[in-house]
Amino acid sequence: MITSSSNQRVKQIIQWQSKAKERRSADIFLAEGFKMFEEAPEPWIREVYISDGIRDRISAIPGMGEKLVRTGCETVSPEVFRKMSDTQSPQGILCVLKRPRYSLEELLSVPAPLFLVLENLQDPGNLGTIVRTGEGAGVTGIIMGAGTADIYNPKTIRATMGSVFRVPFVYMENLSQAVGQLRENGVRVYAAHLEGERYYDSFSFREGTAFLIGNEGAGLSSELASQADSYLKIPMEGSVESLNAAITAAILMYETHRQRQKYSVC
Amino acid sequence: MITSSSNQRVKQIIQWQSKAKERRSADIFLAEGFKMFEEAPEPWIREVYISDGIRDRISAIPGMGEKLVRTGCETVSPEVFRKMSDTQSPQGILCVLKRPRYSLEELLSVPAPLFLVLENLQDPGNLGTIVRTGEGAGVTGIIMGAGTADIYNPKTIRATMGSVFRVPFVYMENLSQAVGQLRENGVRVYAAHLEGERYYDSFSFREGTAFLIGNEGAGLSSELASQADSYLKIPMEGSVESLNAAITAAILMYETHRQRQKYSVC
Repeated sequence: MITSSSNQRVKQIIQWQSKAKERRSADIFLAEGFKMFEEAPEPWIREVYISDGIRDRISAIPGMGEKLVRTGCETVSPEVFRKMSDTQSPQGILCVLKRPRYSLEELLSVPAPLFLVLENLQDPGNLGTIVRTGEGAGVTGIIMGAGTADIYNPKTIRATMGSVFRVPFVYMENLSQAVGQLRENGVRVYAAHLEGERYYDSFSFREGTAFLIGNEGAGLSSELASQADSYLKIPMEGSVESLNAAITAAILMYETHRQRQKYSVC
Repeated sequence: MITSSSNQRVKQIIQWQSKAKERRSADIFLAEGFKMFEEAPEPWIREVYISDGIRDRISAIPGMGEKLVRTGCETVSPEVFRKMSDTQSPQGILCVLKRPRYSLEELLSVPAPLFLVLENLQDPGNLGTIVRTGEGAGVTGIIMGAGTADIYNPKTIRATMGSVFRVPFVYMENLSQAVGQLRENGVRVYAAHLEGERYYDSFSFREGTAFLIGNEGAGLSSELASQADSYLKIPMEGSVESLNAAITAAILMYETHRQRQKYSVC
């Protein structure tokens, strides 16, 4: 059992919790909690740390005791675990995971794909919520520009509630070029934009569809917005000028889901 | 100009920023930033503080210089302002506002009202986002139980982006009783619930409608859920078990908006 926070592996975890660069160069990310351990694909798991005394609680979850035996784990004292954890009330289990690799070509290989393209989205919690909602609505891929928050930020990972293990995503150096590639592959690209002339629910999203979502404050860059096939708008009553980025994404994705379930456009 | 953070008024503001109880007993709330000052109803404004040197920037916004003259303001040094502010990069203007008073009867007096009923919603940012999205979707009133986060929390106020000035809301001691009162007034009450048998978009929300939204983790209490006329569900693909409360609220509110705009149920 590790009982000292000057242990090298413990120091490494603490650094990974806060340093995006270190996580990236090690090609890993961290995920905490029972649910995350339960849902983590086993081939992704590199290391597991548990707080002394919680093994029984983990083993009480069907299948989890066996999973823990297969992955192996290191026990640390509760004091040390609290230091390793990113949360205020740690559940007592933390995994180090290998990052998945997806390519845009893979993401394009499904029939009638549904993409979100995120440009300069800043809020880690918002990003996680978008991934979670995206899985719920049947998004087949998330494409992010270099300016978007780190999907491997511990806050983002937590907010995905496990969806990060299942929704394919890519970061692209050149987002405009990626959008061009979508269009070449027959995907219709929509920008949620204040200058939109038609409401979102007047379009059909049953074929391959991508929604461009911009920065929380500044919206989409005009460069990326100009790549869209159509601008659409979400109606806003009162004095509301814009909606939260995750809310905008949710409304568009669920309208798509609604249309695709019905196989008829209302 | 106030240059000392031991000034009594400054100390009072700092206390109000963090202490819900103190804000409540003074019957006030705080709002920061240009946009919030611009949108704040003038009769609500009790005090305004500006950071030394930003008056010109405020006056550059049409109408704001005059508003500042009418409300009056106290100038404080930038160092002191940073201490008074709840944000990391303060814009340099902070208002103390009188709390509005709404009654459930008032909220019920509009034709075809659209209510959100929030039970034990915990996250201040989520609550603010719900108020903002609510205004956008045309919600006519928000009803909150005593267990819901404080709408006057500075984080919530900020996340409303000004909608807190325009969307009527009430806190009710007894949420079940309030829901009973909605039903007596012909409002149909829907619970977003995992046990829902019909999808949300198969209901008509064109008449008076209320959506019950529960706690982020635990969902609705069975007591409150049992008060609903119908359970509805939002479809979820993949392994998603639930959506974020603000996302759930947004999908339901915008489906209502969509139906009401079209005057025909799809």
